[in-house]
Amino acid sequence: MMSDDILHLGSRGFTNRLFTGTGKFAANTLIAPMLAASGSQMITVALRRIDASGRSENILHHIPPEITLLPNTSGARTAEEAVRIARIARAAGCGDYIKIEIITDMKYLMPDAIETLKATEILAGDGFVVLPYILPDLTLARRLESAGAAAVMPLGAPIGSNLGLETKALIAQLIETCRVPVIVDAGIGLPSQAAAAMEVGAAAVLVNTAIATAADPVAMGRAFDLAVRAGRSAWLAGPAGTSNTARASSPLTGFLE
Amino acid sequence: MMSDDILHLGSRGFTNRLFTGTGKFAANTLIAPMLAASGSQMITVALRRIDASGRSENILHHIPPEITLLPNTSGARTAEEAVRIARIARAAGCGDYIKIEIITDMKYLMPDAIETLKATEILAGDGFVVLPYILPDLTLARRLESAGAAAVMPLGAPIGSNLGLETKALIAQLIETCRVPVIVDAGIGLPSQAAAAMEVGAAAVLVNTAIATAADPVAMGRAFDLAVRAGRSAWLAGPAGTSNTARASSPLTGFLE
Amino acid sequence: MMSDDILHLGSRGFTNRLFTGTGKFAANTLIAPMLAASGSQMITVALRRIDASGRSENILHHIPPEITLLPNTSGARTAEEAVRIARIARAAGCGDYIKIEIITDMKYLMPDAIETLKATEILAGDGFVVLPYILPDLTLARRLESAGAAAVMPLGAPIGSNLGLETKALIAQLIETCRVPVIVDAGIGLPSQAAAAMEVGAAAVLVNTAIATAADPVAMGRAFDLAVRAGRSAWLAGPAGTSNTARASSPLTGFLE
Amino acid sequence: MMSDDILHLGSRGFTNRLFTGTGKFAANTLIAPMLAASGSQMITVALRRIDASGRSENILHHIPPEITLLPNTSGARTAEEAVRIARIARAAGCGDYIKIEIITDMKYLMPDAIETLKATEILAGDGFVVLPYILPDLTLARRLESAGAAAVMPLGAPIGSNLGLETKALIAQLIETCRVPVIVDAGIGLPSQAAAAMEVGAAAVLVNTAIATAADPVAMGRAFDLAVRAGRSAWLAGPAGTSNTARASSPLTGFLE
Repeated sequence: MMSDDILHLGSRGFTNRLFTGTGKFAANTLIAPMLAASGSQMITVALRRIDASGRSENILHHIPPEITLLPNTSGARTAEEAVRIARIARAAGCGDYIKIEIITDMKYLMPDAIETLKATEILAGDGFVVLPYILPDLTLARRLESAGAAAVMPLGAPIGSNLGLETKALIAQLIETCRVPVIVDAGIGLPSQAAAAMEVGAAAVLVNTAIATAADPVAMGRAFDLAVRAGRSAWLAGPAGTSNTARASSPLTGFLE
Repeated sequence: MMSDDILHLGSRGFTNRLFTGTGKFAANTLIAPMLAASGSQMITVALRRIDASGRSENILHHIPPEITLLPNTSGARTAEEAVRIARIARAAGCGDYIKIEIITDMKYLMPDAIETLKATEILAGDGFVVLPYILPDLTLARRLESAGAAAVMPLGAPIGSNLGLETKALIAQLIETCRVPVIVDAGIGLPSQAAAAMEVGAAAVLVNTAIATAADPVAMGRAFDLAVRAGRSAWLAGPAGTSNTARASSPLTGFLE
Repeated sequence: MMSDDILHLGSRGFTNRLFTGTGKFAANTLIAPMLAASGSQMITVALRRIDASGRSENILHHIPPEITLLPNTSGARTAEEAVRIARIARAAGCGDYIKIEIITDMKYLMPDAIETLKATEILAGDGFVVLPYILPDLTLARRLESAGAAAVMPLGAPIGSNLGLETKALIAQLIETCRVPVIVDAGIGLPSQAAAAMEVGAAAVLVNTAIATAADPVAMGRAFDLAVRAGRSAWLAGPAGTSNTARASSPLTGFLE
Repeated sequence: MMSDDILHLGSRGFTNRLFTGTGKFAANTLIAPMLAASGSQMITVALRRIDASGRSENILHHIPPEITLLPNTSGARTAEEAVRIARIARAAGCGDYIKIEIITDMKYLMPDAIETLKATEILAGDGFVVLPYILPDLTLARRLESAGAAAVMPLGAPIGSNLGLETKALIAQLIETCRVPVIVDAGIGLPSQAAAAMEVGAAAVLVNTAIATAADPVAMGRAFDLAVRAGRSAWLAGPAGTSNTARASSPLTGFLE
């Protein structure tokens, strides 16, 4: 239906706007069926979990080859560390996409704007497709655009919190103002919240914890796919406005008179 | 996928949990394609709009025969009037389903609890499948159950307002407590709101204005179908809980050490 | 300052719009200092706690004589029981004010609209100053007015929950439409929520649990008094509207050019 | 009552935690009575409005000498411009307090994190009492502390929007984590919102538009003072928690049995 509604990032086009993650599944064998059920075409993975040595389980064995990998720099505390992780990921064959996560606060896992900007400048210059994880900071987002980011990934709420779109008003500013796609990245806990992000114009959402820790992760992956498509369809279909009073749907007078 | 997840109302079972309405479409010719796109299996129609005489356009001509009609008593101000409308609808061949709407306030179109209870008692006794439109009033809902209602239809916000689930906390009480299905009936303005109603356990939602007055009503009908299925799937898949702090999705330490 | 801003109920005028309650204090000796600190001029008390026999502690000993008593019918499950409690309260010297609480649901303590209306009709006819506890149901509120209620007391959230103004949108309908004062009665958990109720035009608020179970109930009584006066003052001062974009408070250009 | 609850900023202590502003009043002659009514002890003023030359009206003539001036760098687009404005303000006798506002986005007036950090480093080194206006960005706030900021001033919503605490969840992170006072600075539109900011532990709030553009700015100043004290008192008094179900305030059984 929406086959020509394509999100372009780097050299690829995505017809599915639900990005997923590999963390927190009770068993890694759930990842492939979750990807199949959700239709997700891009999945983020921490480089730490990619073992090229073959000594421990490699998370990549659970990801079908047609899925685009989005390695992230989880664990980095500085631009320098993030850059190093990104380069190792590319050298390991994970491709050119990189999600920059630079975090020093261990309680709320809030991103570091200044180091993220530095890493974006460097990695974009290196030819990476750079997706930085940020607070929905409008001025920062514009600077990241100028630095060559392929998209910006503002958080809805703290990573893994499932609290939803706590920052919705700020995210809407980015969507309205940025030229690059705005992908909501953290905190989404329910399909309705993913739909709401798409309804205000997000280009995609990334959902990990809410899927991985559901009682049935495969079914929840399917639910998020439906919700993202619902929200995207609504955005395209042109929602009607709201009214502070009622507006009758049915004739209210005259029937019995 | 969810073919055995059936909502039973009266003698029929519904595999689609999006109920729709016939009001406010720019052209009645949009109704049939909207029904096809949304998969909706039940549609509400004001008796006023059914012209059995053949002198004016009959809305029923636009509704395929496999769709269950849910005539409503819009325009009624008392139980007596509602009962009279219901009986006329049945006599006109509209079937046994009846949505009771008894309204005296013309600004917010809030329902009248006392008259609604009276009408429910009478019409359930007459063999109707009675779906009363109400405030999410827990005590009233229990009384309606006892009076023979097949479901209760609490409002999310004023009819036609598109304001969403303003009464979510009260609706959740009904869902938790009632034995009959709880169908959210008014105010839903966006697919994400329909999904949210389903996620807290609503059995179905009825959406009219948000579909009929969208720029593209057919596409919006499709978006609501996706959202209702997303919310229902999430409810069945067992959502994870929330956390006030972050919970890392990816390993945060050790990579570069 | 607002000495001529008086709330009239029955034959009395109230310059303080914070009503309080006697339940849940760690010690009844906290009630008098809480009343002094908060300035509250009306306090609700369950008849069950008034022991005229002298055999057990009588809560009335802790309430200064200048405070207006608002006996409530807590424990009543029918109009008949509520009427009986009201008459006993009056006979016991508690005055003419009565708050009708008729509840059959023991989990959410939601009021029973139909029985509440019956009791209001009877007690208003008996000369009581009747304040019914209700859901914010517009049609019911209008019926209660016609039945002689002196005010209506819609709930913000379940009794004792401290969840705040979950029903704010419905309460606003009552305030806009009713001729009698609208007093928000349950669920208020923080002073900001009391202020918000007053800002949309509530005539008063009743707060019990949030004061009685605070770490320092006397200081919290004072905090609620300030908040109620803040909200009332704002309502009278004519708040400015909102804007979806920023509006500079300071000149943004020209200084350094 | 709270005379020993003092907010220390620089060398001064403040017993009133409502900071105000000079912008947007219909007449500057309203400023002095607003300050008297609100009890505010600190007021922000754009340097642009201070005319030391005597040729046009000088806003300072309307501010009593006991009020602490908080010059702001409104109009600055870079750290360098902000530093220059700050030094001019100090040279003009406006004292050592400076609120850093560095803004390049003209629609939402969102602050620039990177330039703000630079200006803070420089001005703190110069001996200013630096209060930077920021997004509630936890990592940035920690960096500003290290750079010598006397407080941080996160925004609740866009300047002048009156939309309230849209960023409440993020502000709470700063309050929990920062050692310096957290002063909520923009977007507060109603006293209840100011109270809510104080209830979560803000050290103070700055309110300009909501007071200046009220129908009665002097009365609204008084309302905000009450609300700030209400919220502060509640924070000190130890609010009770919330419950998802009701908790009876009055005995529910036994009276009539």
